Amino acid sequence: MSSWVPGADGSGFGVDHLPYGVFSRPGEEPRVGVRIADQVLDLAPVAAAEMLDVHRVLEARSLNPLMAEGRRVRESVRAWVVGLLSDESERDLVEPHLVPLTEVALHLPVEVADYVDFYASEHHASNVGRIFRPDAEPLLPNWKHLPVGYHGRAGTVVGSGTPVVRPCGQRRGDPAPTYGPSTRLDIEAELGFVVGTPSELGTPVPYDAFADHVFGVVGLNDWSARDIQAWEYVPLGPFLGKSFATSVSHWVTPLEALDAAWVDLPGQDPEPLPYLGPGATRGLDVDVEVAVNGEVVSRPPYRTMYWSPAQLLAHLTVNGASLRTGDLYASGTISGPEPDQRGSLLELGWGADDAFLDDGDEVVIRYAAPGTAGGRITLGEVAGVVEPART
Amino acid sequence: MSSWVPGADGSGFGVDHLPYGVFSRPGEEPRVGVRIADQVLDLAPVAAAEMLDVHRVLEARSLNPLMAEGRRVRESVRAWVVGLLSDESERDLVEPHLVPLTEVALHLPVEVADYVDFYASEHHASNVGRIFRPDAEPLLPNWKHLPVGYHGRAGTVVGSGTPVVRPCGQRRGDPAPTYGPSTRLDIEAELGFVVGTPSELGTPVPYDAFADHVFGVVGLNDWSARDIQAWEYVPLGPFLGKSFATSVSHWVTPLEALDAAWVDLPGQDPEPLPYLGPGATRGLDVDVEVAVNGEVVSRPPYRTMYWSPAQLLAHLTVNGASLRTGDLYASGTISGPEPDQRGSLLELGWGADDAFLDDGDEVVIRYAAPGTAGGRITLGEVAGVVEPART
Repeated sequence: MSSWVPGADGSGFGVDHLPYGVFSRPGEEPRVGVRIADQVLDLAPVAAAEMLDVHRVLEARSLNPLMAEGRRVRESVRAWVVGLLSDESERDLVEPHLVPLTEVALHLPVEVADYVDFYASEHHASNVGRIFRPDAEPLLPNWKHLPVGYHGRAGTVVGSGTPVVRPCGQRRGDPAPTYGPSTRLDIEAELGFVVGTPSELGTPVPYDAFADHVFGVVGLNDWSARDIQAWEYVPLGPFLGKSFATSVSHWVTPLEALDAAWVDLPGQDPEPLPYLGPGATRGLDVDVEVAVNGEVVSRPPYRTMYWSPAQLLAHLTVNGASLRTGDLYASGTISGPEPDQRGSLLELGWGADDAFLDDGDEVVIRYAAPGTAGGRITLGEVAGVVEPART
Repeated sequence: MSSWVPGADGSGFGVDHLPYGVFSRPGEEPRVGVRIADQVLDLAPVAAAEMLDVHRVLEARSLNPLMAEGRRVRESVRAWVVGLLSDESERDLVEPHLVPLTEVALHLPVEVADYVDFYASEHHASNVGRIFRPDAEPLLPNWKHLPVGYHGRAGTVVGSGTPVVRPCGQRRGDPAPTYGPSTRLDIEAELGFVVGTPSELGTPVPYDAFADHVFGVVGLNDWSARDIQAWEYVPLGPFLGKSFATSVSHWVTPLEALDAAWVDLPGQDPEPLPYLGPGATRGLDVDVEVAVNGEVVSRPPYRTMYWSPAQLLAHLTVNGASLRTGDLYASGTISGPEPDQRGSLLELGWGADDAFLDDGDEVVIRYAAPGTAGGRITLGEVAGVVEPART
């Protein structure tokens, strides 16, 4: 399927993609838009002109009201937008509402409810185990039985491009810990999943209900201060080593745009418990690229993950924890089997002191996947520059 | 100071207390109220009658808009309410807006932004260490240098009285883990601190700004499934063992009502780093009472905590993590030095298999503190009944 929008076909942002975001023009309130080529389609006035009820949720400052409408509305809105941008007869109506990206500001697309981060790459977990515990089994006994995860700080999830202030905190010291700016500031290249449809407290969400609850996918950088993390994390897990910032892409790729990207994951042994859907471990063939100061330092392949996105959701709710619209859960660092496929500087530098970020460094993480039209789509990128600590 | 409301003086809910909550009468929308004796003062219409601008935030479904107004408004609204309920000349205006508690429903008072749980009782941390690692030092090396904490699930914070469904999940097993309802369902008696005034991303909140940011205090029960927790928690901390439910009191006691409750904590050795305000370790003289099925099983004293509420806030933000209105942070289990002062069933039963909750058990946690009028105030209680697992 092709689009009448110049430059859309083959751009990674054609009618087979159509990610959602929140944009504003100078002096105007933010509202929902869809990206096509290098433009944003201002959806609300088009919906209002066609007297569609959905125009109200498209005037919101986040995607949450649209996402809360559920799977059927998500699918029908997408079908409507695909029609607008591929059917030449819609051009006169739609074209006045296309705004060049250069004329808009992009905002955090989702009002994040709870943020959960997993640890679903076997290669990443094994690498970290080998770096920190060289004489022990790299994976802990629970790792292959359940997707290990924890809650992060929702209030410090920021949109791509937001500068990241180097965090201060306690580091291990002899004889006593010291306080100061982190000297081991790192990234974690991840994929994030955004929940649209909520669930009831006390009732688990089965793994095969994944597409009923998840609205779409974002790029995600889980910034990490390794020195703060290493000192604080026993026994209750990462806290201040992570909570200073988590960056997500401006664009949310709806699940339907990834229909051609599903692949079998490498496989799971031992077989997980039934609630984790053994045998149903389908992942996404998303290629990730990590660039520091313009130089590509790694290309982690998401298809090498151990735990699937549907398994993460089933595990997250198996205890009856409810989902809310805007919940965000992330894969954990994506690392492939090869040295140049590692998704953190800790792993790329194998723990060396000079492996980490300096003030002024810019990190950009890019994502691409097979599209439904035969080519590839470009998922939202995540960028951030390190600012000096505020002391 | 005394109140013209019958039964208020000496009830624990006199004019020296005046906690805030969110209530509704049948068929009406929830809005902000203040408790006096066994009644709720419906604040919004009184404020509207006096043409006070604040009436708009009092019509909200949560305390968040009121809390977001900041410390000065918090103090002036309190002074106004104290006047309404103590000055006999206000009686004709106010009395029509007093509603018996028996005629209202009470709701979760706060829209929780992020929820952080600490581990700030030395007695609790030592007891847990001795139970789980009998041959090792009970406290880990970081414990006396920083308040250990982690993020919990904000979306499953529920109001007192909400039934708690027994969670299912994975437990350690031989040779493989098993799935089923938790057999070690526990409580944690805690105090929670609710943030009103937000802070800027990248800039820490100093320990002496505690009263500028914290609006008030709630009772809190951090329900815990010990078998799920024990299997999942390495290396990223508690997750599903906690995220199924956290109960808080309906009433939020504003900081000003606790002015007479501040006491020196036991002391800290070694002296913590400067950002933790060494020497400024003031805690609250709150007596806690834990009852299971009507029988008091423990009386933990909050004044025995190691880390102070202001230190917890300073630590939470030292890495530049921002605060939002509605953030909730909790003390961690309150346990005193004596066996009958332990705040969890794990400690009270010293790990025995039969120490935990059965279906149908009711837990009520009560709190009292010195009031500013010389007597004692009764903080909001936290109650919950265990419902069978949904399998």
